[in-house]
Amino acid sequence: MADVVDLRSDTVTKPTPGMRRAMAEAEVGDDVYGEDPAINALEERVAGMFGHEAGLFVPSGTMGNQIGLRLVCEPGQEVLCDAEAHIVTYEMGAAAVLFGISTRTVVSDGGRLDTAQLVEQVRPRDNWHLTATAAIAVENTHNRGGGLVQPLEQLQALWDWSRQAGVDVHLDGARIWNASVASGVDLATYGGLADTASVCLSKGLGAPVGSVLVASAERIAAARLWRKRLGGGMRQAGVLAAAGLYALDAHLDRLAEDHEHAQLLAKRLGVDPATVQTNIVRLDDVPAPVVAEAAKAQGVLVSQVSDRRLRLVTNLGVDRAAVERAGDVLAGILDR
Amino acid sequence: MADVVDLRSDTVTKPTPGMRRAMAEAEVGDDVYGEDPAINALEERVAGMFGHEAGLFVPSGTMGNQIGLRLVCEPGQEVLCDAEAHIVTYEMGAAAVLFGISTRTVVSDGGRLDTAQLVEQVRPRDNWHLTATAAIAVENTHNRGGGLVQPLEQLQALWDWSRQAGVDVHLDGARIWNASVASGVDLATYGGLADTASVCLSKGLGAPVGSVLVASAERIAAARLWRKRLGGGMRQAGVLAAAGLYALDAHLDRLAEDHEHAQLLAKRLGVDPATVQTNIVRLDDVPAPVVAEAAKAQGVLVSQVSDRRLRLVTNLGVDRAAVERAGDVLAGILDR
Amino acid sequence: MADVVDLRSDTVTKPTPGMRRAMAEAEVGDDVYGEDPAINALEERVAGMFGHEAGLFVPSGTMGNQIGLRLVCEPGQEVLCDAEAHIVTYEMGAAAVLFGISTRTVVSDGGRLDTAQLVEQVRPRDNWHLTATAAIAVENTHNRGGGLVQPLEQLQALWDWSRQAGVDVHLDGARIWNASVASGVDLATYGGLADTASVCLSKGLGAPVGSVLVASAERIAAARLWRKRLGGGMRQAGVLAAAGLYALDAHLDRLAEDHEHAQLLAKRLGVDPATVQTNIVRLDDVPAPVVAEAAKAQGVLVSQVSDRRLRLVTNLGVDRAAVERAGDVLAGILDR
Amino acid sequence: MADVVDLRSDTVTKPTPGMRRAMAEAEVGDDVYGEDPAINALEERVAGMFGHEAGLFVPSGTMGNQIGLRLVCEPGQEVLCDAEAHIVTYEMGAAAVLFGISTRTVVSDGGRLDTAQLVEQVRPRDNWHLTATAAIAVENTHNRGGGLVQPLEQLQALWDWSRQAGVDVHLDGARIWNASVASGVDLATYGGLADTASVCLSKGLGAPVGSVLVASAERIAAARLWRKRLGGGMRQAGVLAAAGLYALDAHLDRLAEDHEHAQLLAKRLGVDPATVQTNIVRLDDVPAPVVAEAAKAQGVLVSQVSDRRLRLVTNLGVDRAAVERAGDVLAGILDR
Repeated sequence: MADVVDLRSDTVTKPTPGMRRAMAEAEVGDDVYGEDPAINALEERVAGMFGHEAGLFVPSGTMGNQIGLRLVCEPGQEVLCDAEAHIVTYEMGAAAVLFGISTRTVVSDGGRLDTAQLVEQVRPRDNWHLTATAAIAVENTHNRGGGLVQPLEQLQALWDWSRQAGVDVHLDGARIWNASVASGVDLATYGGLADTASVCLSKGLGAPVGSVLVASAERIAAARLWRKRLGGGMRQAGVLAAAGLYALDAHLDRLAEDHEHAQLLAKRLGVDPATVQTNIVRLDDVPAPVVAEAAKAQGVLVSQVSDRRLRLVTNLGVDRAAVERAGDVLAGILDR
Repeated sequence: MADVVDLRSDTVTKPTPGMRRAMAEAEVGDDVYGEDPAINALEERVAGMFGHEAGLFVPSGTMGNQIGLRLVCEPGQEVLCDAEAHIVTYEMGAAAVLFGISTRTVVSDGGRLDTAQLVEQVRPRDNWHLTATAAIAVENTHNRGGGLVQPLEQLQALWDWSRQAGVDVHLDGARIWNASVASGVDLATYGGLADTASVCLSKGLGAPVGSVLVASAERIAAARLWRKRLGGGMRQAGVLAAAGLYALDAHLDRLAEDHEHAQLLAKRLGVDPATVQTNIVRLDDVPAPVVAEAAKAQGVLVSQVSDRRLRLVTNLGVDRAAVERAGDVLAGILDR
Repeated sequence: MADVVDLRSDTVTKPTPGMRRAMAEAEVGDDVYGEDPAINALEERVAGMFGHEAGLFVPSGTMGNQIGLRLVCEPGQEVLCDAEAHIVTYEMGAAAVLFGISTRTVVSDGGRLDTAQLVEQVRPRDNWHLTATAAIAVENTHNRGGGLVQPLEQLQALWDWSRQAGVDVHLDGARIWNASVASGVDLATYGGLADTASVCLSKGLGAPVGSVLVASAERIAAARLWRKRLGGGMRQAGVLAAAGLYALDAHLDRLAEDHEHAQLLAKRLGVDPATVQTNIVRLDDVPAPVVAEAAKAQGVLVSQVSDRRLRLVTNLGVDRAAVERAGDVLAGILDR
Repeated sequence: MADVVDLRSDTVTKPTPGMRRAMAEAEVGDDVYGEDPAINALEERVAGMFGHEAGLFVPSGTMGNQIGLRLVCEPGQEVLCDAEAHIVTYEMGAAAVLFGISTRTVVSDGGRLDTAQLVEQVRPRDNWHLTATAAIAVENTHNRGGGLVQPLEQLQALWDWSRQAGVDVHLDGARIWNASVASGVDLATYGGLADTASVCLSKGLGAPVGSVLVASAERIAAARLWRKRLGGGMRQAGVLAAAGLYALDAHLDRLAEDHEHAQLLAKRLGVDPATVQTNIVRLDDVPAPVVAEAAKAQGVLVSQVSDRRLRLVTNLGVDRAAVERAGDVLAGILDR
């Protein structure tokens, strides 16, 4: 149904004709042997963008985050983050199951990083009574925080503190591209404030599959073994990497468009535009199942976060006209 | 040095002559075969006190808590608790390492159970995107909360909510005896508000070693296998159980004395007595290492919780005269 | 270098033009939402070929095997297999790390399934002293066994025994296609002798990425959660599934060609052809590093299994002329 | 029933009056703080006996073995041993569950160490495709091997090989005392052929509870944390250590008596005395349940290993007269 406007997530985008062409023409090899040229090019390019030594292509953001956590945390240690973080909310308790890593959380103000709040919770490594806090994880933009861009000064403060405290920082950068486009802070700056970072090609950038984990060369060498152990080693994965490379060329700058579209939606639906920093609009205090159902009947798909909250995510597959139509449909249902 | 007053913890107590006699005379057997009469008697007695079907003797409170968590939570699920809970602070990340269980936390008001705050964080089991919250853990009294007794109405509210929500409740009852003696709420009432509970014989009760995990008969059967897997199966453990049985006879009621002693200390040291509900006194905003050192030089041992906090724990091995002496020594150092 | 003959593995094949076209034209969707038509078609088709209810696309054979093991084995139980099995040799100890599953092994006759030998090692579930044997894993064809096809009567005997013993059977069918083409036993027969089976699209069939795990519908529903937890959930994975579907159409029957080529190589190199049942030729008692190096210098790539063993694997990318050339090169080096 | 002769295991022994006295008089402290004098003395003494730097008291042989394995093996690596080893048979798959350690096994000749057979199975650490063999575990005496004493030349050959191969050796020395008494090889010699060793106080030596893990000081420091994480940290455990110290004084040399008793039984029951090297007698090819039941009715307890095998273990609680009586009872039942 060509008329459907799919705002459930930016993961639903389908490869464009240009991207498909890039995939069809990809030069590939066996990546388990390190011989896939497209994969190698992608890993190198993404690492460079974030100012890290090396990168590793993984099949999902979950695998990127989880291996990233393993690189900064030993079994028995803990990672500190906010209680709404993707790594504790949507990754099925993987850190504990796969690696024996604990998570401890604070309830933050809508996902916003508050370095002081986190630092107060840190427990030292050198006290053998305590579960040691080995790392802090930050999500930027913050998914459940409605695409919130983390304040640079908080990221900087965390980084400065972490250097003297001997605690590592992991960045869940699934949507770091949106953060950069929205804030004007460049990717290397964000990359420079994290020991490990996982960034996704399959969300706003529109590639079909894949994420890249960046870190030091030594850590990425270890990550490669963990990827194999998790079953993430793929063969001629270059067909996927080609899509990622294409997306970096063609779809990065256009994220600004998604952000404008989100603003349009916010205004149309009476949502405070200040709460919409990137490509996610949250509709609070609505009868979520009823509205979602009614919208679907009119060809607009939205995501239910809870009984009273809907989420709309603008993306590559939804142009301005579609956004306006979705706005009208929802406004009609909500009588706004 | 007979003169030392040891207030570091109530775990430091040594068996009394009567307790030693009970141990020396214990009728024992091979508990791995289920044939130790003292162990069987202890398990049955403690289960009965808390109104549960069955009990399991384990070598430590950590093992009791951890197996308890495993009984209410599958690998990949999460347990929710406060960020200062013993299970996340002092148990070395065991739930993740041993069982693949995640923990998620809220920062509470000094360890005090706030059922509404926890319930808001719960994530449902039936949503395959989310890390499911299988259980909530409560600590009573709360160690880092300064021996705080959890409000019965909060416990009751949690229990009532949990029954309709399909979420289990684990009680870390290492010092539940103190809670009961201080509040007058009987042990069976506390036991009736938890699916699994771990209670310690080696703290205020003064036994040398051991805790008992109580739950349904079916769960304790599973716990027995987990205990074996963790290396907690012991042979003629009846020598330890005999001490536990003796402690239940001789040392339970006298906890009121420890509580009085804590009040004495609080008054002597200018600590608000309302913050001292059981046998733990916290001295805040003091130069902890300096004070601890000076007190030690005068034969008084206290525990450093942080750079600015000391902890004093009254216990079986410290009589009124010793408490008074410790109060004088500390008051002198602190110039109070 | 177009002239290179790559016999290291059948994983090194690159997508053919037809396969690339299929990928470029694939109809896709978000498979994490279950909406990718190509993935759905592939899963259904493969499940059907093996007579199982349901299938799950995973990024690698390692993930297919490991999730398969988890479906038939609980943490603390063991899987029994031969000491050269891929799951214990090449999967990085994943079963223990990811799931707490133990493996126990027997040294077999070159990987050949000997049901009686395995059954003798099984330990019952109902004895609480013993580590219970929950499952037996079989590899067909056997990689380190030189592409050995498992005897059907042994598979049948294992299956019959397993039904009354309450032990499950997992099939590592990475190269089950080769077994079927070589033996004439159809895939559904092999599928009918296993509770769970992982089959690879990326080896002899020549797809770039992916495996399918087949089992009952209930088990595959659980597997879907495990795949997410391991980070194996991919978005528009249909581009990969399209390659798999194409491979099933175009590359399954032609495996017979690979087998002929392996026979050619065996004869040319003086290897007993009876030891070459499918597409793998082992050269034993040769100075492996020296020969591999010399062959490489002449454009023939082979795989070193040990200091004295080389492995040659015929595959889609190596035609008859290339095989003959490789045979000549190696015969020259070995003076055969 | 004072008349019962309990030959099920040497774990069933009850503390003697002298041992009970030692326990009652033990000088104790809080071992979690490292302050228990009896524990410290025991750990130092046992470490010294085996020529190791340090020791750690643990509540069971299972915990001693498992922590020992963790000291010589990282998650994802494997330990190699025989398929009947206690660590894979009776420890509930703990290495995989607790630590993500894999086990791989060979079927040996009745538990007898055959170094060449094991070494052939070792996989190198420096090959990133392979599951690395980090350690080999040896059991001496071998429980399921009928109390078999491992040949010193095999132990020596394994040790020599292991030093150049970079593979560690763990000794499951639950009954190493019996091996030493039977072979005349001293404990330090056995200790010198292992990186880590777990030895039990609760079997032939007759202490009620406990084992000691010995290794280098650095490893034992790590082991102490693992013990805490597993819930094996105990408080005034000196009451148990006192029993262990007493057992070392009073019960070590007398194991020769148990060995003589086993010979008596073997002769009386027509078992080849050459198969009885220490304190375990196996009765093969008997209707095990029937015989066990009939013996029990006459006050003789034996252990069923399988449907056709019984095990008799002589121990501290069974004197010569009792052994003779048991022999008569069993001979009567078996008509020998």
